[in-house]
Amino acid sequence: MAKIEVAVVGASGYGGGELLRILAMHPNVQLKIAVSSTYAGKPITASFPNLSGHLPNLTFTPYGDGVDVAQCDVVFLAQENGKAIQTAPHLLEAGCKIVDLSADFRLRDTALYETVYKTPHTAPEWNQKAVYGLPELFREQIKSAPIVGNPGCYTTASILALAPLLKHQLVDTKSIIVDAKSGVSGAGRAKFALDYHFPEINESVSAYKIAGTHRHTPEIEATLSEYCELSDFTLTFTPHLIPMTRGILATSYATLLGTQATADLYELYREFYKEEPFVVIAEDPLPATKHTLGSNRCHIGMAVDKRNGRVTIISAIDNLVKGAAGQAVQNMNLICGFEETAGLLYAGGMAP
Amino acid sequence: MAKIEVAVVGASGYGGGELLRILAMHPNVQLKIAVSSTYAGKPITASFPNLSGHLPNLTFTPYGDGVDVAQCDVVFLAQENGKAIQTAPHLLEAGCKIVDLSADFRLRDTALYETVYKTPHTAPEWNQKAVYGLPELFREQIKSAPIVGNPGCYTTASILALAPLLKHQLVDTKSIIVDAKSGVSGAGRAKFALDYHFPEINESVSAYKIAGTHRHTPEIEATLSEYCELSDFTLTFTPHLIPMTRGILATSYATLLGTQATADLYELYREFYKEEPFVVIAEDPLPATKHTLGSNRCHIGMAVDKRNGRVTIISAIDNLVKGAAGQAVQNMNLICGFEETAGLLYAGGMAP
Amino acid sequence: MAKIEVAVVGASGYGGGELLRILAMHPNVQLKIAVSSTYAGKPITASFPNLSGHLPNLTFTPYGDGVDVAQCDVVFLAQENGKAIQTAPHLLEAGCKIVDLSADFRLRDTALYETVYKTPHTAPEWNQKAVYGLPELFREQIKSAPIVGNPGCYTTASILALAPLLKHQLVDTKSIIVDAKSGVSGAGRAKFALDYHFPEINESVSAYKIAGTHRHTPEIEATLSEYCELSDFTLTFTPHLIPMTRGILATSYATLLGTQATADLYELYREFYKEEPFVVIAEDPLPATKHTLGSNRCHIGMAVDKRNGRVTIISAIDNLVKGAAGQAVQNMNLICGFEETAGLLYAGGMAP
Amino acid sequence: MAKIEVAVVGASGYGGGELLRILAMHPNVQLKIAVSSTYAGKPITASFPNLSGHLPNLTFTPYGDGVDVAQCDVVFLAQENGKAIQTAPHLLEAGCKIVDLSADFRLRDTALYETVYKTPHTAPEWNQKAVYGLPELFREQIKSAPIVGNPGCYTTASILALAPLLKHQLVDTKSIIVDAKSGVSGAGRAKFALDYHFPEINESVSAYKIAGTHRHTPEIEATLSEYCELSDFTLTFTPHLIPMTRGILATSYATLLGTQATADLYELYREFYKEEPFVVIAEDPLPATKHTLGSNRCHIGMAVDKRNGRVTIISAIDNLVKGAAGQAVQNMNLICGFEETAGLLYAGGMAP
Repeated sequence: MAKIEVAVVGASGYGGGELLRILAMHPNVQLKIAVSSTYAGKPITASFPNLSGHLPNLTFTPYGDGVDVAQCDVVFLAQENGKAIQTAPHLLEAGCKIVDLSADFRLRDTALYETVYKTPHTAPEWNQKAVYGLPELFREQIKSAPIVGNPGCYTTASILALAPLLKHQLVDTKSIIVDAKSGVSGAGRAKFALDYHFPEINESVSAYKIAGTHRHTPEIEATLSEYCELSDFTLTFTPHLIPMTRGILATSYATLLGTQATADLYELYREFYKEEPFVVIAEDPLPATKHTLGSNRCHIGMAVDKRNGRVTIISAIDNLVKGAAGQAVQNMNLICGFEETAGLLYAGGMAP
Repeated sequence: MAKIEVAVVGASGYGGGELLRILAMHPNVQLKIAVSSTYAGKPITASFPNLSGHLPNLTFTPYGDGVDVAQCDVVFLAQENGKAIQTAPHLLEAGCKIVDLSADFRLRDTALYETVYKTPHTAPEWNQKAVYGLPELFREQIKSAPIVGNPGCYTTASILALAPLLKHQLVDTKSIIVDAKSGVSGAGRAKFALDYHFPEINESVSAYKIAGTHRHTPEIEATLSEYCELSDFTLTFTPHLIPMTRGILATSYATLLGTQATADLYELYREFYKEEPFVVIAEDPLPATKHTLGSNRCHIGMAVDKRNGRVTIISAIDNLVKGAAGQAVQNMNLICGFEETAGLLYAGGMAP
Repeated sequence: MAKIEVAVVGASGYGGGELLRILAMHPNVQLKIAVSSTYAGKPITASFPNLSGHLPNLTFTPYGDGVDVAQCDVVFLAQENGKAIQTAPHLLEAGCKIVDLSADFRLRDTALYETVYKTPHTAPEWNQKAVYGLPELFREQIKSAPIVGNPGCYTTASILALAPLLKHQLVDTKSIIVDAKSGVSGAGRAKFALDYHFPEINESVSAYKIAGTHRHTPEIEATLSEYCELSDFTLTFTPHLIPMTRGILATSYATLLGTQATADLYELYREFYKEEPFVVIAEDPLPATKHTLGSNRCHIGMAVDKRNGRVTIISAIDNLVKGAAGQAVQNMNLICGFEETAGLLYAGGMAP
Repeated sequence: MAKIEVAVVGASGYGGGELLRILAMHPNVQLKIAVSSTYAGKPITASFPNLSGHLPNLTFTPYGDGVDVAQCDVVFLAQENGKAIQTAPHLLEAGCKIVDLSADFRLRDTALYETVYKTPHTAPEWNQKAVYGLPELFREQIKSAPIVGNPGCYTTASILALAPLLKHQLVDTKSIIVDAKSGVSGAGRAKFALDYHFPEINESVSAYKIAGTHRHTPEIEATLSEYCELSDFTLTFTPHLIPMTRGILATSYATLLGTQATADLYELYREFYKEEPFVVIAEDPLPATKHTLGSNRCHIGMAVDKRNGRVTIISAIDNLVKGAAGQAVQNMNLICGFEETAGLLYAGGMAP
């Protein structure tokens, strides 16, 4: 099969770097363009020494200046929020398929986007054609989408944990709490503020943007509301910074309406995700982020406390793979009609 | 003032090591005996090179064999669960005051102890005279207790976070969840199983003993029930292992019965803990475990999500200080009539 | 091409786990048997949750009991030192090719082996037919070897750093020092002693077995002596434990006999390793262990201090890949006539 | 005794924060002024939540504007290099004693300073009156100095390791190598570049400024040359970044001129440092940085390789205490005639 041509815009960040790593080995892809203003003119290894020996002929290029991103079949946009709404329309009109890793095309409700991100959404029509790129919930719509809004890392872990319970109306929708723990790479590579300075993060755990103020809260709420047909649905979401580089562990809580035991819920989750190549239902041991390091899989485990009818669900992902670049490639595979797992199995998880 | 004579039994573990560190500089204490079967006959620095230059004449001694622990004024028992119920009665009868860092004298309900710890409680009468050693809640009782059951690390962080709300009956008692994150020193020093092997823990987060199965769950429930006069009180407690050495961050959730705002709760907590030398109400920044590293303080912050009336409370301690050895010395100070902060202020917190 | 059948003995350790991870995706291999006494009868994921979704039909098996390792084409022995000299002869006589990851077949001088490892070498004849499995120095001999002694992790990093200088007789052979820093996975998975307990390792650096007492010292000396035709060659080797999971950084020092500048040495190293798929000469940035995380590559950089004629060489590897399982697969590829890089490129390095 | 009044300039960095922590508990000191332009007007806890409960009445102040630093008895300057040469002369003329934690007053050879720091030294006369603040080598001179140049962190660990051997002329002065490993707090708090971003540092080790290009190289050379009366003395110094917050481990190498055994050297070091309150000669276990965490002590161990007559010396310090703030207070104690250990013993080391 002829390979498609692909560009990555925002290629020197952590999401971009993982895209380069995965795409370098993808059997159906020729990586043509890696756009980075910071590293323009430099070899890929100037930013990513880990890619030494891969992509030997690729150099970072600036955006514009005759670099014709628009001629690529698929473009990954891995820039900060607010950039894709500017660049995407031109590329879409030129016929590119787009996977956007920012928040710009994740919320169908443009007013909500503008409230949360405090910026006008300048591409509302394309936004209506965009699909939320969580294949486990929206696979068929993704296949024919011109543009996919690739989910946030926290939201991927949270939604996959909660969707089976909410879809089957097994829990009190007012009872839901997600307590999430993230490695620091989730803050991005450009954002090296004091908050992420090694001595401040190391040997410490902290919560931030608590009580519903983190931007992923409305994304989780909107996506679960759409998929599970809920209205007026709110949950409590708490993000924490953990002294590690990669990984998200989401501990979700919900009060059962019925009297299901732990085994009943395991059966439900196994059935719900039985066709999914990238969801693992894990019973013993329970999920740990290390189990997903470098992998595109989400591991999910759970237990019910019979005393109070509350279920605790543990979900783990690699925030840069299933939570960003790996899921983006999974979406590309769907859009292009490739095997859904193409290029994503070799990532494996590492031990230890 | 003449110094009292003190012994530490179980002196080569992490709790024991911190006791030695703190007691070495305590103005009212002469540390006479450090019992360790593992290191018997060796200098303190064989186990704790960090104490080089301190306690120059002290050597670890075995239990018994003419080492007369019973002649000390105060004995700290820092052994695994199930040992203090054997050693304490003899010492108490000899007139020693005891601070026990294990779980043996934390639960007044001996039947509950036997269910949770799966061992008969062989000192039930002394257990009825014991006091739960959380000075912020039980200061007066501690002062005259012959033996104090020093609280667990998770329980200290959890109870201090929840007591003001429950005491004032501001929250739905069925809504409470504590999601706690602990450094690995909480597992103790002797317990070097594969679970705590560096490569398994590092760069990973995991939950364990979820859905009410951790032994600190009944300890939190029983203590809050007693202090706040609750009945049939259960909560959901989830412990997590974090890739760091020290520190516990507890993120607690409760549904408010009223419409208090964040500022109202800050006022309540400031009032509740206004006389406490070791509780800090922290608004900006929110508590992080690093703020308490090496210190005997508990930092507490909070926020309300107006959308769903749920409060999120963040509490942080150093699990080996306020969660173990520091609190034990605070209890000794109360029992002996010393300044409550004696020997505990120099610990300070470190930056970074 | 028909796939060869392969067994891994000692499959539940860190080296074994990485072998399973790499072999699961190897295009020329069918992984038939994974021997582990600890996990016998359990699925691969009981020990390696990271391999969920891979090797779905493989279960750990005990050694013996009808598990016919000897019918495999290639057997990887990944056990503690002293085991391979017992198991290898039988397998070799049955016609298996063997890659041994222990120290048993690394030293051609059996007397030296017995001195260093304090055990009789019970397979001295096979030892004479064994080849030291460092492809960059001994590629041709490996291709026809019945058994390969896969190099130690420290030795791989050290030898690749020093071979060009010593082979070209550019440095004083009495001046050589290797100061090596290793992640804790190098200690293995079974060895969860207090020394490797998370709280003891984390936030600390220490040296151990200093002044020539580490067992990799004679391995480095013997290999460089053979390859560079040196006699009476000794160096100083210092291993250090670093609070990280994977990676070795070796900082090597040598006094130049001539007046080469940094650029001259870079040219020499580029020439020396120009055909090597797994050696990267890195100038800016200098090598860091993170650049090799999950990869089979060794990165090498250097600089000369003109003031005293001393060269400092920095080499980095992933101790579990190029320092163990990856190099073992590279050796298998050579022995079996596969593409040398088969199954090893997808490992990539991760960013970050 | 009346307390002296003290100011800290540059009080919101890591060195400044540790000064505040130590001085808050110092029996002879009243901390009057904490200058920070970044945090001017804010309470100490805005920058250092770890100091909650300490220094309750202190607020950061800007420099100048009526804040009369010059009226203090002792001023600690903890700013970036190049600032103290501007501020110190005025304070010295006003009669303040100064401990400068920057490099500005460490080198008596002003031309060397200007070469290394690429800036003119604008206070050369005061520089001639300054003393290098390493009490173990220059105690008597420090006592009467108007200004002390507090040593660098790398240099403290290196010089204390090498001084006994060089002073006694036991080693080849051309053979010396120091391979040093530092936690990231050594880079300072303001310097939160990509190089120190958590995901770049964590799980990685790297060398930087190799082959004599780090600025601490001439500082070590000049100090040892002065103290040991050496001429044309150069050594090789290699700094490394380690994924931890605090601590320096220096591994030093030298070739013995004689045939001393390990035990001979231990005897020499014990004799050399026998009166020193802050030097620990450690034989078993060897020094690790964790042994010094939070402490003002330097731990030193060693071994000789009889095969090649080379000695390996291991020295460990906490870079922010003995390598910065603790040593600065030790110097203040000498200058002011206080007990040399005043305020420095409670720091202790922590276990773990």
